[in-house]
Amino acid sequence: MIKDYEQGYFSEQNSAEVVAARNAGAKDERLRECVNILVKHVHAAIKEMELTQEEWFKTILFLTETGHMCNDWRQEFILLSDVMGVSMLVDAINNRKPSGASESTVLGPFHVAEVPELPMGANICLDGKGEPMMVRGRILDTSGNPIEGVKIDVWQANDEGFYDVQQKGIQPDYNLRGVFRTAADGSYCFRGVKPKYYPIPDDGPVGKLLGALGRHPYRPAHFHYILQADGFETLITHIFDPDDPYINSDAVFGVKESLMAKFQLIEKPDQIATSGFDGPYHLVEHDFVLVRE
Amino acid sequence: MIKDYEQGYFSEQNSAEVVAARNAGAKDERLRECVNILVKHVHAAIKEMELTQEEWFKTILFLTETGHMCNDWRQEFILLSDVMGVSMLVDAINNRKPSGASESTVLGPFHVAEVPELPMGANICLDGKGEPMMVRGRILDTSGNPIEGVKIDVWQANDEGFYDVQQKGIQPDYNLRGVFRTAADGSYCFRGVKPKYYPIPDDGPVGKLLGALGRHPYRPAHFHYILQADGFETLITHIFDPDDPYINSDAVFGVKESLMAKFQLIEKPDQIATSGFDGPYHLVEHDFVLVRE
Repeated sequence: MIKDYEQGYFSEQNSAEVVAARNAGAKDERLRECVNILVKHVHAAIKEMELTQEEWFKTILFLTETGHMCNDWRQEFILLSDVMGVSMLVDAINNRKPSGASESTVLGPFHVAEVPELPMGANICLDGKGEPMMVRGRILDTSGNPIEGVKIDVWQANDEGFYDVQQKGIQPDYNLRGVFRTAADGSYCFRGVKPKYYPIPDDGPVGKLLGALGRHPYRPAHFHYILQADGFETLITHIFDPDDPYINSDAVFGVKESLMAKFQLIEKPDQIATSGFDGPYHLVEHDFVLVRE
Repeated sequence: MIKDYEQGYFSEQNSAEVVAARNAGAKDERLRECVNILVKHVHAAIKEMELTQEEWFKTILFLTETGHMCNDWRQEFILLSDVMGVSMLVDAINNRKPSGASESTVLGPFHVAEVPELPMGANICLDGKGEPMMVRGRILDTSGNPIEGVKIDVWQANDEGFYDVQQKGIQPDYNLRGVFRTAADGSYCFRGVKPKYYPIPDDGPVGKLLGALGRHPYRPAHFHYILQADGFETLITHIFDPDDPYINSDAVFGVKESLMAKFQLIEKPDQIATSGFDGPYHLVEHDFVLVRE
């Protein structure tokens, strides 16, 4: 046991060093490192803000309420992490990509494992609601070669901003979800509905905090991808609608310039005729570039 | 609304600046300042530790468990703040004292308002358990002048390490608590029992974390004071036993060198005779210096 007096007793000046010295006997070296780094930075923040005792207590109550809001269906601490840019920062640190490779963004809470695999071009919209959309493109390696057989897991909210799992009994099971595979030329294609912006759950303490910060709770319209192929790094990402009213203020900071793809409205009869739709639809064309492991 | 692209979209490099720009419309300037400072330092910590996604998720689960442990009787986030040195840091920032003045330390969760006022020298031990202790001294201003009529609110755990409010029905109400006033010469005196070290509640996530960090949950033996006098800053502090086995490793970092006072064992019959005790007792002599408002 390192004794406090070897560091001097705890004071405003040496506070983080005294705590770190106390953690010297940790069995898990990585835990010790992380706790000490966090203590160092949080103490520095408290000193910089000159936090009052009343503000400290308000913070304790906020964290307590946030904890009490969490249950099997609601994760208020992940929301807090999301709206403070922490989730996206952790994503960025763990998914550094070489120049030219497609970028990642947050997974989000609505992914479902074991979704049925569908044939190229299938429509994942099972209830016929919303404006039709076709999505297509190619999946390439960083040298521009097509990758065959990439597993493409896609999911999206409906045109009211809800995922199937948020509306069980209202939307059909597996509505707006599907797994596809690229062809020999790396191409993929599926059909769905034009997504719409939606709010993150904002009836809890994190929503109140967003409001006090003058922020809205909306995520711009997007759909989700997980791209997996043998020998390549898995890519978790979104495609965003650049014309969405919230494209420049995603509540969770998920937008990256490279993840926007134009939603073109297709109205020409000959294009409609070959689309499988019976009227105008939105076409989204986007290629992805995966990185070899 | 400041748009993300004015900062560049969110990236590992500019993450904290992008979040701060988003908070620009906060109605409460102080909230905005504190959130932005905390975001800056927490993002810096995450970058320094290169937090993995698995570690991030473990942190989310830890915070969730900590929240679920909180109820009307248990405040696990305050415990977390305590064992990370945050509570003592906030105390230090808010109670900077001029040289020569008595130092503050944490209030702790066991203070009770509206305790009966007792005459000089009264014994606050109502159940006769434990080794008898007499505490006395003077309360002075920073020029060394005595302060008359200082309200002295004292409380302590019994010799098993429990406060009365933790053992309702076992200890008498108001056991080991009392309010006293200084005499014209600034003197005070009360009797109680020699306190003992005790653990902070360690059956929750914070206790588990302490264990993983190789730390024990004990606070060294101490008793509590709140000193209040018109025209002076209120002082919240402890007196510690310098011979306690945990004096150099208080789980909550509350010990300061100036807050230690020797517990002298008094065995001389003439001293015992004037003490009000019928056998040997511990004598603690400690003066306090209060700062004018």
